[in-house]
Amino acid sequence: MKTIDVCLTPDLLHLHTSSLENSIVVVADVFRATSCMVTAFAYGVNSIIPVATIEECRQLQERGFLTAAERNAQKVEGFDLDNSPFSFMNENLIGSNIAMTTTNGTYAITRSRNAVKVLVGSFLNLDAIVRFLRGERYDVLVLCAGWKGRANLEDTLFAGALIERMKDEYMVPEDSGLMAWRLYVQGQKDLVGYLSNSSHVRRLHRLSINKDIMYCLQHDLYDVIPVLRGNSLVSMEV
Amino acid sequence: MKTIDVCLTPDLLHLHTSSLENSIVVVADVFRATSCMVTAFAYGVNSIIPVATIEECRQLQERGFLTAAERNAQKVEGFDLDNSPFSFMNENLIGSNIAMTTTNGTYAITRSRNAVKVLVGSFLNLDAIVRFLRGERYDVLVLCAGWKGRANLEDTLFAGALIERMKDEYMVPEDSGLMAWRLYVQGQKDLVGYLSNSSHVRRLHRLSINKDIMYCLQHDLYDVIPVLRGNSLVSMEV
Repeated sequence: MKTIDVCLTPDLLHLHTSSLENSIVVVADVFRATSCMVTAFAYGVNSIIPVATIEECRQLQERGFLTAAERNAQKVEGFDLDNSPFSFMNENLIGSNIAMTTTNGTYAITRSRNAVKVLVGSFLNLDAIVRFLRGERYDVLVLCAGWKGRANLEDTLFAGALIERMKDEYMVPEDSGLMAWRLYVQGQKDLVGYLSNSSHVRRLHRLSINKDIMYCLQHDLYDVIPVLRGNSLVSMEV
Repeated sequence: MKTIDVCLTPDLLHLHTSSLENSIVVVADVFRATSCMVTAFAYGVNSIIPVATIEECRQLQERGFLTAAERNAQKVEGFDLDNSPFSFMNENLIGSNIAMTTTNGTYAITRSRNAVKVLVGSFLNLDAIVRFLRGERYDVLVLCAGWKGRANLEDTLFAGALIERMKDEYMVPEDSGLMAWRLYVQGQKDLVGYLSNSSHVRRLHRLSINKDIMYCLQHDLYDVIPVLRGNSLVSMEV
């Protein structure tokens, strides 16, 4: 039986070094990087290069890329797009190539390069992810992007949602997966309420981004899966 | 308001370096190191030196200490005591000085040295811990010993139990604490059942240690708190 494991933050990825090479990694940064990426591809973006630093993002801007840069949940001065999924619902972006850096999500993606495949997950494309994984023979590792090395509730809940949908076909070998799964089962009927005390939702409330939160918690809106190919994310329809 | 934070595994302790020096750390390795320590002091042991390596434990044995050594949930050949709490219910141990090394718990304790105080926690002395912390002005960090760097369910549940009892007097600033708390609230009515799928309980079942599991999940049996003083744990009555 295939297994599904959960890495609660990139700061624990060293525990998965050996299994990474034989697993498909699903990276989740629900608020808001991976939700943005999924939205961008659903709206016709051609590619997204995730980069770890502001400096790399600026270099790609000089080479003609559209750029999106976020630090501490806010847009960085001098770049084209912010980290709200609504910024990516724009017909001017159809066919474009974007360079993106965020506090946690793009870092988590770049750390996962050695995996069999790196998929970008969010509640928005949860069902697409499930359908794709079912057809593959590999074990799955969900990498929660967290917040500056710490575990966070929303990404853990995404991991739990994935396990809840795959529980009949996959084994959950480790407690991090069990914990994520049980938290999702406990909170699934009202994720907005369940998340209302979480640190990042409090952070986003201060920035008045309630609309983004509601949007990012919707399940199964899109059939696209951003997948890492070389240094770029491209879209895979399933 | 004071805060209570949770570090899900010693491999994330680097995130707490600055707060450690202003916090009281409660180390939990419920199955079974910290439950053993609490039991040992409740039964009259004088001191326990937690050491990280088998080699250090052997050196202390040569200097006349009683020794307890566990690796991978089993007793290490050549030492005096194993890692079952029942081994410490022995009148021959009254007044003795023990050197102990375990896979996770003693490592977590030695990593916490820079804290204001390092307390040893378990369900067995939960109420004593709560009463002690209430009288102190410091923030609290619960350090879950986990399993070889990974988070585990039982230590996370202990952290949640502590938060559930202190929720009116402490703020929970981070999601790791929220997650621990919610898991405990979900599982508290039947902790044995709730833990039955966890990785370490499966590991212990294979070793037929069900009796230890039932014992370690009992709440509030003893009023002793092992506290680190220099290199040794000594008993503090509250």
